[in-house]
Amino acid sequence: MPTASIGPELQRLIDLLAKMPGLGPRSAKRAALYLLKKREPVMRPLAFALEDAAQKVKACAVCGNWDSIDPCAVCADDERDASLICVVQDVGDLWALERAGAHKGRYHVLGGLLSPLDGIGPDDLNMGALIARAKEEAVKEIILALPATVDGQTTAHYLTEHLEMSGVNVTRLSQGVPVGGELDYLDEGTLAAAMKARRPF
Amino acid sequence: MPTASIGPELQRLIDLLAKMPGLGPRSAKRAALYLLKKREPVMRPLAFALEDAAQKVKACAVCGNWDSIDPCAVCADDERDASLICVVQDVGDLWALERAGAHKGRYHVLGGLLSPLDGIGPDDLNMGALIARAKEEAVKEIILALPATVDGQTTAHYLTEHLEMSGVNVTRLSQGVPVGGELDYLDEGTLAAAMKARRPF
Repeated sequence: MPTASIGPELQRLIDLLAKMPGLGPRSAKRAALYLLKKREPVMRPLAFALEDAAQKVKACAVCGNWDSIDPCAVCADDERDASLICVVQDVGDLWALERAGAHKGRYHVLGGLLSPLDGIGPDDLNMGALIARAKEEAVKEIILALPATVDGQTTAHYLTEHLEMSGVNVTRLSQGVPVGGELDYLDEGTLAAAMKARRPF
Repeated sequence: MPTASIGPELQRLIDLLAKMPGLGPRSAKRAALYLLKKREPVMRPLAFALEDAAQKVKACAVCGNWDSIDPCAVCADDERDASLICVVQDVGDLWALERAGAHKGRYHVLGGLLSPLDGIGPDDLNMGALIARAKEEAVKEIILALPATVDGQTTAHYLTEHLEMSGVNVTRLSQGVPVGGELDYLDEGTLAAAMKARRPF
């Protein structure tokens, strides 16, 4: 093209939008056009919300959840069962469990998984704090809600070894057929695990 | 859930991200988590770029293209053919034509299409300026690059009527089989149009 038809300010905005997960180079352009049409109702408030959240949202010193207060709203909630700690890989997984309403206790966010191949060891994750929490009088059970992947299971084994020393009960999520799942579409690994872990009807 | 597990600052950021085209409520959460992990390289620069573009990017007084300079870079480029004006619905269509390198002249962005059903009339669009431009000595041809929809064709007919008075040559994009397109997958309307507009080989 003879000259760049997109000015530098707009191009920089498009390049930054394109870095977000879910947006590619084309959808970033579409998003930029949308935002320019909604400057006052969306674009400016979004700029403010980004800067505001970047400043205020921090990892909770107790559990690693992201919140603007510390300890976070979940840790500060007295109605939650302090004897139950659910260990998750990431804040997104905490949100997923909260959405399901599946856990009424506290959480602990690791911030990742052990991954020898990527050079991620125990010191790179929020693990020391979990092992310290496990020794607290009130904590009775630690639920490992980690993904059923190689790294997830490596992390679960490592944590089980280090947590059982403190006498706490370590459990993990069950594996099996998803609710509403058709057997025909399930992979062999899940079917084999569901068969092995069969329970009386 | 017992308490909201997402704080107000974070929730507002997610709600605003979810308004962008291409992002829904879930992908907005994923985007927010990604941004919080990349505060310095992406999140803060994005906040700045949004505010900066909201302030500086304006519609070009000549053609309606969005740029931080006025007249825009396309209008200010002397190497472009001033005798050819390509009329598009939106800035996104201008970018698409520039990507294709299909047009070496100037542009005119209408900012929408005539739509009697939605109550959009000629005065709601950037049409007066186009009719004035058509009367300029230098302008020889106006290419209507409008969508092949009912509203697009309504707008094209309206513009043709008003532009031909000024003696300028009005053309439109050809319709037919897309490059690389299989006949078997084409709709009947396109096939009929391609047959009707057949050309010597």
